Amino acid sequence: MKIISGELNELTRYLSEQTNQEAEENVEEQVKIILKAVKETGDTAVIDYTEKFDGVTLSDFRLSKEQIQAGYKRTNPEVVTALEAAKKNIVSFHQKQKQNGFIDAEKNGVIRGQLVLPLETVGIYVPGGTARYPSSVLMNALPAKIAGVKRIVMITPPDKAGLPDAILAAATICGIEEIYQVGGAQGIAALAYGTASIPKVDKIVGPGNIYVATAKKLLFGEVAIDMIAGPSEIVVLADAQANPKFIAADLLSQAEHDTLARAILITTSQALAERVEKEVWQQLKELPRAEIARKSIENQSHIFVVKDIETQFALMNQIAPEHLEIQIENPMAHLSRVKHAGSIFLGDYASEPLGDYLAGPNHVLPTSGTARFFSPLGVDDFIKKSAFISYTKAALGLEKDAVMTLAREEGLEAHARAIQVRFDEEIGGEK
Amino acid sequence: MKIISGELNELTRYLSEQTNQEAEENVEEQVKIILKAVKETGDTAVIDYTEKFDGVTLSDFRLSKEQIQAGYKRTNPEVVTALEAAKKNIVSFHQKQKQNGFIDAEKNGVIRGQLVLPLETVGIYVPGGTARYPSSVLMNALPAKIAGVKRIVMITPPDKAGLPDAILAAATICGIEEIYQVGGAQGIAALAYGTASIPKVDKIVGPGNIYVATAKKLLFGEVAIDMIAGPSEIVVLADAQANPKFIAADLLSQAEHDTLARAILITTSQALAERVEKEVWQQLKELPRAEIARKSIENQSHIFVVKDIETQFALMNQIAPEHLEIQIENPMAHLSRVKHAGSIFLGDYASEPLGDYLAGPNHVLPTSGTARFFSPLGVDDFIKKSAFISYTKAALGLEKDAVMTLAREEGLEAHARAIQVRFDEEIGGEK
Repeated sequence: MKIISGELNELTRYLSEQTNQEAEENVEEQVKIILKAVKETGDTAVIDYTEKFDGVTLSDFRLSKEQIQAGYKRTNPEVVTALEAAKKNIVSFHQKQKQNGFIDAEKNGVIRGQLVLPLETVGIYVPGGTARYPSSVLMNALPAKIAGVKRIVMITPPDKAGLPDAILAAATICGIEEIYQVGGAQGIAALAYGTASIPKVDKIVGPGNIYVATAKKLLFGEVAIDMIAGPSEIVVLADAQANPKFIAADLLSQAEHDTLARAILITTSQALAERVEKEVWQQLKELPRAEIARKSIENQSHIFVVKDIETQFALMNQIAPEHLEIQIENPMAHLSRVKHAGSIFLGDYASEPLGDYLAGPNHVLPTSGTARFFSPLGVDDFIKKSAFISYTKAALGLEKDAVMTLAREEGLEAHARAIQVRFDEEIGGEK
Repeated sequence: MKIISGELNELTRYLSEQTNQEAEENVEEQVKIILKAVKETGDTAVIDYTEKFDGVTLSDFRLSKEQIQAGYKRTNPEVVTALEAAKKNIVSFHQKQKQNGFIDAEKNGVIRGQLVLPLETVGIYVPGGTARYPSSVLMNALPAKIAGVKRIVMITPPDKAGLPDAILAAATICGIEEIYQVGGAQGIAALAYGTASIPKVDKIVGPGNIYVATAKKLLFGEVAIDMIAGPSEIVVLADAQANPKFIAADLLSQAEHDTLARAILITTSQALAERVEKEVWQQLKELPRAEIARKSIENQSHIFVVKDIETQFALMNQIAPEHLEIQIENPMAHLSRVKHAGSIFLGDYASEPLGDYLAGPNHVLPTSGTARFFSPLGVDDFIKKSAFISYTKAALGLEKDAVMTLAREEGLEAHARAIQVRFDEEIGGEK
């Protein structure tokens, strides 16, 4: 993590040289084989791959009510209380996202509008292995519940040691009753195609490793998916009055996720830049999981010193970060400078982990610059719209010529005749 | 097109045996090569492929203002009038889709909310060849305009005969000034990566052939895309009082799109079924472009006779059609039976082509059963959201324990410390 001063175009160029895309060819070939096997042999393939990749033999993937309840009961009560507090804020925030359908009956003889309907069945992937994120269960499941999705199915890889209690507690708190112990690309395939044991879903959400992400990408169209998550990233914009201890801690909170995570400070103050750099190394020394954070700080993270606030925001918008902290005086006033960011944290006390766990907004956010066109996960991800149209004969009569003109311009004669037939007394001899 | 009677599960099984997925392996390999070439050599590759696939040599892809204006002026005035009428209805409908951001300041010391921002740059693909659809320009561009997208770029394959005037008129009517003569996978790649001549966009929408669709699918993530369009499809639900001439004409309006288009009638009346079948063959005899429609009718289209309205709707929901016509008495009352359909046409006079061209709702609709999870194209396709959070120290103080508990449960110590540091007077010796 070096301190670099520069103009906007220099720093933009510097950043673009840093991005490296790993070749994923090999993974894609492997995943295609797994998808094909599950599509053709269903549970048989899922059982085989679960033995092969997870080292567990299961003939019945589904967790019983008793198993789920037992996990919930074993969970540390402080954790349960914290999850309930998170749920409250997540629900109150996401409820404000709900859209209504609309109806327009302004024109005589015409009624048109839009229905908003929930998806019928949704699958949530919860990663296994060393990563255990009960907060992830809440962030994926609660918007689906609020949208009105009737059937939410959770899948997570099996573990010889049993599934983590906190995951089962989170599922219970969200009202998820259907949990299957199956993971990886084979789990995604099972949800997308359906097997004898595992229902076919309409959409799959939830983070996972490269095999899970590749499976989701290949199955897009067969099933809807959420975003493909890349490494975590944060941009902190700060001025001279910001607190370097706070900033350093926030940068490290991102860095600890992943050696490829990016933590970037953009400041107008050389003095602040130097204090933050010192703080980062100091706090790093005292951190467990320091190896991951250290690699991220050394290889992927930067401190940029620029000349003014306009450059700060211009560079941030170029990056289009997943998380954006604005630790500049009167932070809210600068909201209109933000063009591309997943989630925005304003002021000294809106620390990014607050958003990860508790404030209410979703922590499933667009990464790798996709904040240019993707949104945080939300209620809109779990609904679909249908348009509807009703016309009287008289209303159609007023617009029929325009329709037929356009249809014939496009060479679609049957389209024109479908309108014309409504105004013919007889077809055949007379027209 | 046979008349088949049956129970729900029999007909569902029958339909699932009809679906055949073409192997797309070969196309994907070809497209990957094109994408790589454009990514690496920009305009050079685009020029080469345009010569190779379109037989046209262009060094400057962009149409001049004069060229666009000339096309507009040459367009049949009736077509211009019809396009203006369509624009009026499309705009008035889509304006009702606009979402506002929200802000929540209910909790003391907490402000959170959601911004809604337009995408910055959008590319619209307009197919070439024999298919010339000015209506498609309107349906893709107008929602983007209403969303507030500042820069809309249109690409369409060049033609030795020049671009169709009606396409240029449609672009003018939508306020599109940036048009490039480039098509196919190379055009999509140019928009996704950007070249010296063609700007990089955030999202690509618009229908195209298998090469275009494959390019969009492969580039998803690099750039946002709309849906991958499959063959057109319509389901008509009718009772004994429906008009067989109208129904036959509507079925044929779909069939004329594509030999793979599906036109399905589901009725409770054997008598109506027989009259519709007769009408279809009669009207087919009198239709130009009959060969395409005939193949669709013969191979992909069906008339089902079922016992009751419940079965009608259940079977339709299984299909999840792109277009749904309800020609049943008191059609609007049955809206709540619809679970999955792109666009719904109610009653005798809401003929499907009315929706294609003029009523206002979008004609870019989910096909191949994706109405289970996708929506019509709309304003929401051209915006993205950002969450924002602001907390005072006191407000954070009330929630800090919950955040730290969850962070530590998930093994993310730096996340916990980022909160803790806000409440330490000193870090280092004392904590």
